[in-house]
Amino acid sequence: MRISELSTATGVPIATIKYYLREGLLPEGERTAATQATYSERHARRLRVIRALIDAGVSLAEVRRVLDALDDPPESPHELLGAAHAAVTPSAAGDLDTAAAEQLIRRIGWQPGTCDDDVVAAVARALEGIARAGFEIPDAVMSAYLESVRRIARAEIAGVPTESPEAAVRYVVLGSVLIEPLLLALRRVAEQVASAERFGGRPPIAGRH
Amino acid sequence: MRISELSTATGVPIATIKYYLREGLLPEGERTAATQATYSERHARRLRVIRALIDAGVSLAEVRRVLDALDDPPESPHELLGAAHAAVTPSAAGDLDTAAAEQLIRRIGWQPGTCDDDVVAAVARALEGIARAGFEIPDAVMSAYLESVRRIARAEIAGVPTESPEAAVRYVVLGSVLIEPLLLALRRVAEQVASAERFGGRPPIAGRH
Repeated sequence: MRISELSTATGVPIATIKYYLREGLLPEGERTAATQATYSERHARRLRVIRALIDAGVSLAEVRRVLDALDDPPESPHELLGAAHAAVTPSAAGDLDTAAAEQLIRRIGWQPGTCDDDVVAAVARALEGIARAGFEIPDAVMSAYLESVRRIARAEIAGVPTESPEAAVRYVVLGSVLIEPLLLALRRVAEQVASAERFGGRPPIAGRH
Repeated sequence: MRISELSTATGVPIATIKYYLREGLLPEGERTAATQATYSERHARRLRVIRALIDAGVSLAEVRRVLDALDDPPESPHELLGAAHAAVTPSAAGDLDTAAAEQLIRRIGWQPGTCDDDVVAAVARALEGIARAGFEIPDAVMSAYLESVRRIARAEIAGVPTESPEAAVRYVVLGSVLIEPLLLALRRVAEQVASAERFGGRPPIAGRH
Protein backbone atom coordinates (compact mmCIF):
# COMPACT_ATOMS: atom_id res chain seq x y z
CA MET A 1 0.00 0.00 0.00
CA ARG A 2 1.06 3.60 -0.48
CA ILE A 3 1.84 5.93 2.40
CA SER A 4 -1.61 7.56 2.08
CA GLU A 5 -3.26 4.14 2.39
CA LEU A 6 -1.03 3.25 5.33
CA SER A 7 -2.21 6.48 6.95
CA THR A 8 -5.87 5.64 6.34
CA ALA A 9 -5.42 2.05 7.55
CA THR A 10 -3.82 3.10 10.84
CA GLY A 11 -5.27 6.55 11.47
CA VAL A 12 -1.75 7.98 11.74
CA PRO A 13 -1.22 11.23 9.77
CA ILE A 14 1.21 11.07 6.83
CA ALA A 15 3.50 13.71 8.36
CA THR A 16 3.78 11.58 11.52
CA ILE A 17 4.54 8.44 9.49
CA LYS A 18 7.30 10.35 7.66
CA TYR A 19 8.69 11.45 11.01
CA TYR A 20 8.82 7.83 12.26
CA LEU A 21 10.54 6.81 9.01
CA ARG A 22 13.18 9.54 9.42
CA GLU A 23 13.70 8.54 13.07
CA GLY A 24 14.14 4.90 12.04
CA LEU A 25 11.25 3.67 14.21
CA LEU A 26 9.51 2.41 11.10
CA PRO A 27 11.59 0.64 8.41
CA GLU A 28 11.61 2.18 4.91
CA GLY A 29 9.01 0.88 2.47
CA GLU A 30 9.96 -0.83 -0.76
CA ARG A 31 10.90 1.88 -3.32
CA THR A 32 8.71 1.77 -6.43
CA ALA A 33 9.90 5.09 -7.89
CA ALA A 34 12.22 7.94 -6.91
CA THR A 35 9.53 9.53 -4.76
CA GLN A 36 7.29 6.54 -4.02
CA ALA A 37 7.46 3.53 -1.79
CA THR A 38 5.06 0.74 -0.96
CA TYR A 39 4.27 -0.47 2.54
CA SER A 40 3.18 -3.85 3.86
CA GLU A 41 0.83 -5.09 6.56
CA ARG A 42 3.96 -5.43 8.71
CA HIS A 43 4.41 -1.66 8.55
CA ALA A 44 0.81 -1.15 9.59
CA ARG A 45 1.19 -3.53 12.55
CA ARG A 46 4.34 -1.81 13.71
CA LEU A 47 2.78 1.61 13.29
CA ARG A 48 -0.15 0.56 15.47
CA VAL A 49 2.28 -0.63 18.14
CA ILE A 50 4.14 2.70 18.05
CA ARG A 51 0.90 4.67 18.32
CA ALA A 52 -0.41 2.54 21.16
CA LEU A 53 2.81 3.01 23.13
CA ILE A 54 2.87 6.76 22.55
CA ASP A 55 -0.81 7.09 23.42
CA ALA A 56 -0.05 5.17 26.63
CA GLY A 57 2.38 7.94 27.56
CA VAL A 58 5.59 6.12 26.61
CA SER A 59 8.31 8.52 25.43
CA LEU A 60 9.87 8.27 21.97
CA ALA A 61 13.17 7.06 23.46
CA GLU A 62 11.33 4.35 25.40
CA VAL A 63 9.34 3.35 22.32
CA ARG A 64 12.65 2.86 20.54
CA ARG A 65 13.89 0.54 23.29
CA VAL A 66 10.65 -1.45 23.31
CA LEU A 67 10.88 -1.85 19.51
CA ASP A 68 14.50 -2.99 19.89
CA ALA A 69 13.34 -5.68 22.33
CA LEU A 70 10.64 -6.71 19.82
CA ASP A 71 13.17 -6.78 16.94
CA ASP A 72 15.93 -8.60 18.74
CA PRO A 73 14.35 -10.60 21.54
CA PRO A 74 16.50 -12.15 24.30
CA GLU A 75 16.38 -15.94 24.46
CA SER A 76 14.26 -16.62 27.53
CA PRO A 77 10.93 -14.98 28.35
CA HIS A 78 12.37 -14.12 31.76
CA GLU A 79 15.16 -12.03 30.21
CA LEU A 80 12.67 -10.57 27.80
CA LEU A 81 10.52 -9.30 30.65
CA GLY A 82 13.62 -7.71 32.13
CA ALA A 83 14.34 -5.99 28.80
CA ALA A 84 10.76 -4.72 28.55
CA HIS A 85 10.86 -3.35 32.08
CA ALA A 86 14.28 -1.81 31.52
CA ALA A 87 12.88 0.01 28.49
CA VAL A 88 10.18 1.70 30.51
CA THR A 89 11.81 2.05 33.95
CA PRO A 90 14.10 5.01 34.63
CA SER A 91 17.62 4.06 35.68
CA ALA A 92 18.18 3.91 39.42
CA ALA A 93 19.55 7.08 40.98
CA GLY A 94 22.83 6.55 42.80
CA ASP A 95 21.95 7.42 46.35
CA LEU A 96 18.64 5.67 46.75
CA ASP A 97 18.15 3.63 49.92
CA THR A 98 16.43 0.40 48.86
CA ALA A 99 16.34 -1.32 52.27
CA ALA A 100 12.67 -0.55 53.00
CA ALA A 101 11.68 -1.48 49.44
CA GLU A 102 13.54 -4.80 49.70
CA GLN A 103 11.89 -5.63 52.99
CA LEU A 104 8.49 -4.93 51.45
CA ILE A 105 8.95 -6.95 48.26
CA ARG A 106 10.22 -9.98 50.14
CA ARG A 107 6.53 -10.36 50.98
CA ILE A 108 5.81 -11.04 47.28
CA GLY A 109 8.57 -13.61 47.01
CA TRP A 110 11.43 -11.33 45.99
CA GLN A 111 14.95 -12.39 46.92
CA PRO A 112 18.22 -10.66 46.04
CA GLY A 113 19.03 -11.43 42.41
CA THR A 114 15.51 -12.26 41.18
CA CYS A 115 14.81 -8.74 39.88
CA ASP A 116 16.48 -5.96 37.95
CA ASP A 117 17.91 -3.33 40.26
CA ASP A 118 16.01 -0.59 38.42
CA VAL A 119 12.66 -2.19 39.21
CA VAL A 120 13.55 -2.44 42.90
CA ALA A 121 14.69 1.19 42.74
CA ALA A 122 11.30 2.16 41.27
CA VAL A 123 9.60 0.69 44.37
CA ALA A 124 12.07 2.57 46.59
CA ARG A 125 11.41 5.84 44.77
CA ALA A 126 7.64 5.40 45.07
CA LEU A 127 7.92 4.68 48.80
CA GLU A 128 10.15 7.72 49.21
CA GLY A 129 7.60 9.97 47.50
CA ILE A 130 4.83 8.63 49.73
CA ALA A 131 6.93 9.14 52.88
CA ARG A 132 8.02 12.63 51.79
CA ALA A 133 4.38 13.67 51.48
CA GLY A 134 3.82 12.48 55.05
CA PHE A 135 1.46 9.79 53.81
CA GLU A 136 1.16 6.46 55.61
CA ILE A 137 -0.29 3.33 54.07
CA PRO A 138 -2.35 1.35 56.60
CA ASP A 139 -1.15 -2.26 57.03
CA ALA A 140 -4.37 -3.76 55.76
CA VAL A 141 -4.15 -1.65 52.60
CA MET A 142 -0.50 -2.54 51.98
CA SER A 143 -1.36 -6.23 52.36
CA ALA A 144 -4.11 -5.77 49.77
CA TYR A 145 -1.57 -4.20 47.38
CA LEU A 146 0.96 -6.99 47.81
CA GLU A 147 -1.58 -9.82 47.49
CA SER A 148 -3.19 -8.17 44.48
CA VAL A 149 0.00 -7.58 42.50
CA ARG A 150 1.07 -11.15 43.22
CA ARG A 151 -2.28 -12.43 41.97
CA ILE A 152 -2.10 -10.20 38.87
CA ALA A 153 1.49 -11.17 38.04
CA ARG A 154 0.83 -14.89 38.42
CA ALA A 155 -2.15 -14.72 36.07
CA GLU A 156 -0.15 -12.64 33.58
CA ILE A 157 2.91 -14.88 33.57
CA ALA A 158 0.77 -18.03 33.41
CA GLY A 159 -0.76 -16.53 30.25
CA VAL A 160 2.52 -15.91 28.42
CA PRO A 161 2.20 -17.84 25.15
CA THR A 162 5.16 -20.15 24.61
CA GLU A 163 4.30 -21.61 21.19
CA SER A 164 6.14 -18.89 19.30
CA PRO A 165 8.89 -16.52 20.46
CA GLU A 166 7.24 -13.66 18.54
CA ALA A 167 3.96 -14.14 20.40
CA ALA A 168 5.81 -14.24 23.73
CA VAL A 169 7.66 -11.03 22.89
CA ARG A 170 4.53 -9.15 21.94
CA TYR A 171 2.68 -10.38 24.99
CA VAL A 172 5.40 -9.53 27.47
CA VAL A 173 6.56 -6.20 26.08
CA LEU A 174 3.18 -4.75 25.15
CA GLY A 175 1.36 -6.26 28.12
CA SER A 176 3.85 -4.79 30.50
CA VAL A 177 3.43 -1.26 29.15
CA LEU A 178 -0.10 -1.06 27.79
CA ILE A 179 -1.81 -2.62 30.78
CA GLU A 180 -0.62 0.09 33.18
CA PRO A 181 -3.13 2.77 32.14
CA LEU A 182 -5.90 0.15 32.26
CA LEU A 183 -5.03 -0.96 35.80
CA LEU A 184 -4.84 2.62 37.06
CA ALA A 185 -8.15 3.54 35.44
CA LEU A 186 -9.84 0.38 36.77
CA ARG A 187 -8.55 1.16 40.26
CA ARG A 188 -10.16 4.60 40.09
CA VAL A 189 -13.48 3.15 39.00
CA ALA A 190 -13.31 0.55 41.77
CA GLU A 191 -12.46 3.26 44.30
CA GLN A 192 -15.47 5.34 43.29
CA VAL A 193 -17.71 2.28 43.44
CA ALA A 194 -16.38 1.33 46.90
CA SER A 195 -16.65 4.94 48.05
CA ALA A 196 -20.28 5.16 46.94
CA GLU A 197 -20.91 1.91 48.84
CA ARG A 198 -19.35 3.23 52.04
CA PHE A 199 -20.29 6.89 52.03
CA GLY A 200 -23.32 6.94 49.82
CA GLY A 201 -23.25 9.29 46.90
CA ARG A 202 -25.28 9.48 43.78
CA PRO A 203 -27.34 6.29 44.04
CA PRO A 204 -27.15 3.73 41.27
CA ILE A 205 -30.02 4.27 38.85
CA ALA A 206 -32.54 1.46 39.31
CA GLY A 207 -33.78 -0.50 36.35
CA ARG A 208 -30.69 -0.01 34.16
CA HIS A 209 -28.37 -2.97 33.85
CA MET B 1 11.68 29.91 59.78
CA ARG B 2 13.40 31.78 56.94
CA ILE B 3 13.28 30.66 53.33
CA SER B 4 16.78 29.14 53.61
CA GLU B 5 15.65 27.09 56.62
CA LEU B 6 12.48 26.06 54.78
CA SER B 7 14.74 24.89 51.95
CA THR B 8 16.94 22.88 54.33
CA ALA B 9 13.92 21.39 56.13
CA THR B 10 12.28 20.17 52.91
CA GLY B 11 15.22 19.62 50.58
CA VAL B 12 13.61 21.93 48.00
CA PRO B 13 16.01 24.50 46.49
CA ILE B 14 15.32 28.17 47.32
CA ALA B 15 14.86 29.06 43.64
CA THR B 16 12.17 26.38 43.35
CA ILE B 17 10.41 27.62 46.49
CA LYS B 18 10.39 31.15 45.04
CA TYR B 19 8.91 29.77 41.84
CA TYR B 20 6.08 28.05 43.76
CA LEU B 21 5.45 31.31 45.66
CA ARG B 22 5.22 33.28 42.40
CA GLU B 23 2.90 30.63 40.93
CA GLY B 24 0.68 30.81 44.01
CA LEU B 25 1.07 27.10 44.84
CA LEU B 26 2.63 28.06 48.17
CA PRO B 27 1.07 30.94 50.15
CA GLU B 28 3.30 33.94 50.95
CA GLY B 29 5.17 33.84 54.26
CA GLU B 30 4.60 36.44 56.95
CA ARG B 31 6.59 39.60 56.04
CA THR B 32 9.13 40.53 58.70
CA ALA B 33 10.97 43.15 56.59
CA ALA B 34 10.82 44.53 53.08
CA THR B 35 12.90 41.65 51.71
CA GLN B 36 12.28 38.99 54.35
CA ALA B 37 9.44 36.69 55.28
CA THR B 38 9.03 33.91 57.79
CA TYR B 39 7.53 30.52 57.04
CA SER B 40 5.66 28.06 59.22
CA GLU B 41 5.51 24.29 59.54
CA ARG B 42 2.34 24.53 57.41
CA HIS B 43 4.48 25.83 54.53
CA ALA B 44 6.90 22.94 54.97
CA ARG B 45 4.05 20.39 54.94
CA ARG B 46 2.54 21.89 51.81
CA LEU B 47 5.93 22.06 50.11
CA ARG B 48 6.48 18.35 50.80
CA VAL B 49 3.11 17.57 49.27
CA ILE B 50 3.94 19.61 46.15
CA ARG B 51 7.31 17.88 45.76
CA ALA B 52 5.84 14.44 46.28
CA LEU B 53 3.20 15.05 43.62
CA ILE B 54 5.71 16.45 41.13
CA ASP B 55 8.13 13.60 41.79
CA ALA B 56 5.24 11.21 41.15
CA GLY B 57 4.95 12.68 37.65
CA VAL B 58 1.96 14.93 38.32
CA SER B 59 2.02 18.07 36.15
CA LEU B 60 2.05 21.54 37.68
CA ALA B 61 -1.51 22.20 36.49
CA GLU B 62 -2.67 18.95 38.11
CA VAL B 63 -0.78 19.78 41.33
CA ARG B 64 -2.72 23.05 41.41
CA ARG B 65 -6.03 21.21 41.12
CA VAL B 66 -5.04 18.70 43.83
CA LEU B 67 -4.09 21.58 46.15
CA ASP B 68 -7.42 23.26 45.40
CA ALA B 69 -9.19 20.08 46.50
CA LEU B 70 -7.06 20.05 49.67
CA ASP B 71 -7.80 23.74 50.37
CA ASP B 72 -11.49 23.66 49.65
CA PRO B 73 -12.68 20.10 50.22
CA PRO B 74 -16.14 19.02 49.05
CA GLU B 75 -18.48 17.91 51.81
CA SER B 76 -18.56 14.14 51.46
CA PRO B 77 -15.55 11.86 51.05
CA HIS B 78 -17.26 10.42 47.99
CA GLU B 79 -17.31 13.81 46.25
CA LEU B 80 -13.77 14.42 47.43
CA LEU B 81 -12.56 11.27 45.70
CA GLY B 82 -14.26 12.46 42.54
CA ALA B 83 -12.45 15.82 42.83
CA ALA B 84 -9.10 14.10 43.37
CA HIS B 85 -9.64 11.86 40.37
CA ALA B 86 -10.82 14.77 38.25
CA ALA B 87 -7.60 16.60 39.11
CA VAL B 88 -5.44 13.83 37.72
CA THR B 89 -7.62 12.38 34.94
CA PRO B 90 -7.62 14.02 31.52
CA SER B 91 -11.03 15.18 30.35
CA ALA B 92 -12.88 12.71 28.16
CA ALA B 93 -12.46 13.21 24.44
CA GLY B 94 -15.73 13.75 22.63
CA ASP B 95 -15.91 10.80 20.32
CA LEU B 96 -14.83 7.99 22.63
CA ASP B 97 -16.94 4.84 22.57
CA THR B 98 -17.37 3.75 26.20
CA ALA B 99 -19.67 0.75 25.62
CA ALA B 100 -16.93 -1.88 26.02
CA ALA B 101 -15.51 -0.09 29.06
CA GLU B 102 -18.94 0.08 30.68
CA GLN B 103 -19.56 -3.59 30.08
CA LEU B 104 -16.20 -4.41 31.69
CA ILE B 105 -16.58 -2.24 34.79
CA ARG B 106 -20.05 -3.58 35.54
CA ARG B 107 -18.05 -6.60 36.72
CA ILE B 108 -16.60 -4.46 39.54
CA GLY B 109 -19.98 -3.16 40.60
CA TRP B 110 -20.15 -0.08 38.38
CA GLN B 111 -23.58 1.17 37.37
CA PRO B 112 -24.46 4.27 35.36
CA GLY B 113 -24.15 7.29 37.63
CA THR B 114 -21.75 5.83 40.24
CA CYS B 115 -18.60 7.21 38.60
CA ASP B 116 -17.31 10.35 36.98
CA ASP B 117 -17.52 10.17 33.20
CA ASP B 118 -13.82 11.02 32.89
CA VAL B 119 -12.81 7.96 34.88
CA VAL B 120 -14.96 5.71 32.70
CA ALA B 121 -13.42 7.42 29.66
CA ALA B 122 -9.93 6.64 31.01
CA VAL B 123 -10.83 2.93 31.02
CA ALA B 124 -12.19 3.25 27.48
CA ARG B 125 -9.01 5.00 26.29
CA ALA B 126 -6.82 2.33 27.87
CA LEU B 127 -8.85 -0.45 26.22
CA GLU B 128 -8.64 1.38 22.91
CA GLY B 129 -4.84 1.60 23.15
CA ILE B 130 -4.61 -2.11 23.92
CA ALA B 131 -6.91 -3.02 21.02
CA ARG B 132 -5.09 -0.69 18.62
CA ALA B 133 -1.81 -2.46 19.37
CA GLY B 134 -3.51 -5.74 18.49
CA PHE B 135 -3.10 -6.96 22.05
CA GLU B 136 -5.61 -9.29 23.64
CA ILE B 137 -6.00 -9.82 27.36
CA PRO B 138 -6.76 -13.46 28.20
CA ASP B 139 -10.00 -13.91 30.19
CA ALA B 140 -8.22 -15.32 33.23
CA VAL B 141 -5.89 -12.33 33.33
CA MET B 142 -8.73 -9.81 32.97
CA SER B 143 -10.57 -11.53 35.82
CA ALA B 144 -7.43 -11.21 37.95
CA TYR B 145 -7.30 -7.46 37.16
CA LEU B 146 -10.93 -6.89 38.05
CA GLU B 147 -10.84 -8.91 41.27
CA SER B 148 -7.58 -7.27 42.31
CA VAL B 149 -8.67 -3.67 41.79
CA ARG B 150 -11.89 -4.40 43.64
CA ARG B 151 -9.92 -5.87 46.55
CA ILE B 152 -7.50 -2.90 46.54
CA ALA B 153 -10.27 -0.30 46.38
CA ARG B 154 -12.28 -1.88 49.20
CA ALA B 155 -9.24 -1.93 51.48
CA GLU B 156 -8.40 1.66 50.56
CA ILE B 157 -11.88 3.02 51.09
CA ALA B 158 -12.31 1.06 54.34
CA GLY B 159 -9.14 2.82 55.52
CA VAL B 160 -10.37 6.37 54.86
CA PRO B 161 -10.13 8.14 58.23
CA THR B 162 -13.41 9.84 59.13
CA GLU B 163 -12.47 11.49 62.44
CA SER B 164 -11.32 14.70 60.76
CA PRO B 165 -12.17 16.11 57.33
CA GLU B 166 -8.55 17.22 56.87
CA ALA B 167 -7.28 13.68 57.44
CA ALA B 168 -9.85 12.31 54.98
CA VAL B 169 -8.82 14.87 52.39
CA ARG B 170 -5.13 14.10 52.66
CA TYR B 171 -5.73 10.38 52.58
CA VAL B 172 -8.01 10.40 49.56
CA VAL B 173 -6.22 12.98 47.42
CA LEU B 174 -2.65 11.92 48.12
CA GLY B 175 -3.43 8.21 48.29
CA SER B 176 -5.12 8.33 44.94
CA VAL B 177 -2.14 9.95 43.21
CA LEU B 178 0.93 8.81 45.13
CA ILE B 179 0.02 5.13 45.27
CA GLU B 180 -0.01 4.76 41.49
CA PRO B 181 3.78 4.62 41.00
CA LEU B 182 4.01 2.17 43.91
CA LEU B 183 1.41 -0.19 42.45
CA LEU B 184 3.04 -0.14 39.01
CA ALA B 185 6.49 -0.77 40.47
CA LEU B 186 5.20 -3.58 42.70
CA ARG B 187 3.50 -5.19 39.71
CA ARG B 188 6.81 -5.23 37.84
CA VAL B 189 8.61 -6.84 40.76
CA ALA B 190 5.83 -9.43 41.10
CA GLU B 191 6.00 -10.13 37.36
CA GLN B 192 9.73 -10.74 37.49
CA VAL B 193 9.32 -12.99 40.52
CA ALA B 194 6.52 -14.97 38.81
CA SER B 195 8.53 -15.11 35.58
CA ALA B 196 11.58 -16.49 37.40
CA GLU B 197 9.28 -19.09 38.99
CA ARG B 198 7.84 -20.17 35.65
CA PHE B 199 10.76 -19.86 33.28
CA GLY B 200 13.73 -20.12 35.58
CA GLY B 201 16.23 -17.35 35.33
CA ARG B 202 18.82 -16.28 37.79
CA PRO B 203 18.08 -18.55 40.74
CA PRO B 204 17.31 -17.03 44.13
CA ILE B 205 20.46 -16.94 46.22
CA ALA B 206 20.22 -19.63 48.90
CA GLY B 207 20.88 -18.81 52.52
CA ARG B 208 19.91 -15.13 52.28
CA HIS B 209 16.53 -14.16 53.69
